[in-house]
Amino acid sequence: MPSNDEFDRDTDYIATRITADGRDGFPVEPGRYRLVVARACPWANRAIIVRRLLGLEDVLSIGFCGPTHDERSWTFDLDPGGVDPVLKIPRLQDAYFRRDPHYPKGITVPAIVDETTGAVVTNDFAPMTLDLSTEWTAYHREGAPDLYPEALRDEIDEVAERIYTDVNNAVYQCGFAGSQASYEAAYDKLFAALDWLSDRLIDRRYLVGDAITEADVRLFTTLVRFDPVYHGHFKCNRNKLSELPVLWAYARDLFQTPGFGDTIDFEQIKQHYYLVHTGINPTQLVPKGPELVNWQMPHGREALGGEPFGKGTPPGPVREGERVL
Amino acid sequence: MPSNDEFDRDTDYIATRITADGRDGFPVEPGRYRLVVARACPWANRAIIVRRLLGLEDVLSIGFCGPTHDERSWTFDLDPGGVDPVLKIPRLQDAYFRRDPHYPKGITVPAIVDETTGAVVTNDFAPMTLDLSTEWTAYHREGAPDLYPEALRDEIDEVAERIYTDVNNAVYQCGFAGSQASYEAAYDKLFAALDWLSDRLIDRRYLVGDAITEADVRLFTTLVRFDPVYHGHFKCNRNKLSELPVLWAYARDLFQTPGFGDTIDFEQIKQHYYLVHTGINPTQLVPKGPELVNWQMPHGREALGGEPFGKGTPPGPVREGERVL
Repeated sequence: MPSNDEFDRDTDYIATRITADGRDGFPVEPGRYRLVVARACPWANRAIIVRRLLGLEDVLSIGFCGPTHDERSWTFDLDPGGVDPVLKIPRLQDAYFRRDPHYPKGITVPAIVDETTGAVVTNDFAPMTLDLSTEWTAYHREGAPDLYPEALRDEIDEVAERIYTDVNNAVYQCGFAGSQASYEAAYDKLFAALDWLSDRLIDRRYLVGDAITEADVRLFTTLVRFDPVYHGHFKCNRNKLSELPVLWAYARDLFQTPGFGDTIDFEQIKQHYYLVHTGINPTQLVPKGPELVNWQMPHGREALGGEPFGKGTPPGPVREGERVL
Repeated sequence: MPSNDEFDRDTDYIATRITADGRDGFPVEPGRYRLVVARACPWANRAIIVRRLLGLEDVLSIGFCGPTHDERSWTFDLDPGGVDPVLKIPRLQDAYFRRDPHYPKGITVPAIVDETTGAVVTNDFAPMTLDLSTEWTAYHREGAPDLYPEALRDEIDEVAERIYTDVNNAVYQCGFAGSQASYEAAYDKLFAALDWLSDRLIDRRYLVGDAITEADVRLFTTLVRFDPVYHGHFKCNRNKLSELPVLWAYARDLFQTPGFGDTIDFEQIKQHYYLVHTGINPTQLVPKGPELVNWQMPHGREALGGEPFGKGTPPGPVREGERVL
């Protein structure tokens, strides 16, 4: 039950959409938009993965904010001079203010910025990746997978809805709970969902159908952060992911698939949460553990059948300049 | 290397000793002294275990402080009326002030209080348990183990010294480090020591000789707190204890031995650290995990030989009023 001390995510994002028909005034157009992300952020991680799986690198540029941000904004502190080389701004906030000089909400990633005006078009992460799949089809690479196939959309939406409330967002509700009771309610919800997902994935390689879909992308971005961050920092500690055999093998399977593990920077992920959330971690010490070498262990899930990319093919190597160092 | 930002434990305790010959003015005497502990505290846990292994319950009474304490003192908040039934005081501080009205240091457990004056005799936890073994021999139970046998003292001292600096205290140095560098140094020291202990315990059931000694007691009290507290709260997270097979089996072996596991209250342990250390955990949320049922799993270490109590016998059931609820 919702209560006053429960962590409440503000989901009122800038809902403008970039579509093939341009009905919101922003048509899909190669070279016009810049996807601004931070590798640390799970919501941005979705977009990094989907853009790469679909091969949109040449039509939709990408800008990387650093793992930490100040009170006001994510910043381009990884770039030479601390300025995004395309947008020529030091803080993502500047692009939000181009959109609305009095933008009153949090400065979030992912955001897609119109390079012609420097203004944010949208930061609405949930439709964003679906639009990359369904509106940008003219620019998908040869062999791009269909991450949101028409015949499976109802099932993907249903699974993704529970993943959002009970996994993606529940870990935050654990960490930012305002009372022991709301923490424990979120914890119970989270682990009930992980048990449900474990059951679902015992005999099927992917969540919906027999290839990777948007649902897998959405689950992966939380699972990959589980042991390095959520287990300790957010007190999601019934088990480590590595103690849940089915989900752990599933997560490794995706991690080892081109387009997933190659987007992950564990150091940036840990730095983000442990340095930014001073209300939870005032010492700002960043845990040295856990050992993460095991992400490359064999997972054995090929035996369950299915093809990662359906009738498509894996994406090629990560582009120069977009590689995790 | 010591540095300014390293956590520094104040080890200047009240060093008065209770001895058979009474040379410090406090002779061993049945019914005269009260051991004040908190189940949460690893240093006090040593004394709880040793008192029970040696069967000193009838000659040395015990008082239990609650898991949390206020800024000034551990308190007897678990007792009816919040007052220790023997000492008739609400806070352990009162017994320290009987000893020294201007006692300037931390109010720590374990402490032994002289019931005739209500004043603390000693809070020096390291010699305290050794004195229970060597000075209180006239009152040991029939079949009490020799936890500090003469022939093994050099080896026990040597092992215990490294356990103190690199394990017992190193976990606190991780959690309370004043800088990332001193945290990482403590973390490396800790896990190097745990690896050393794992190697040592591969083919021997106990740390020194072939029966339980003081060295095992000292290691156990940190190991049992490792997954519930130190792993997350103090960021000792290279691995969980349950991921270190030798130490995990060793810790379960001791836990299942009368006198060890029956002194452990995981709820009080978690509450203490997570509620008291607001500088590390300002939300004061207490993790619901980890799952702890596995402490009762078979450990298989009987095959390594040795006898837990040497020529002695296990202690009997825990006394009424001293049981973990």
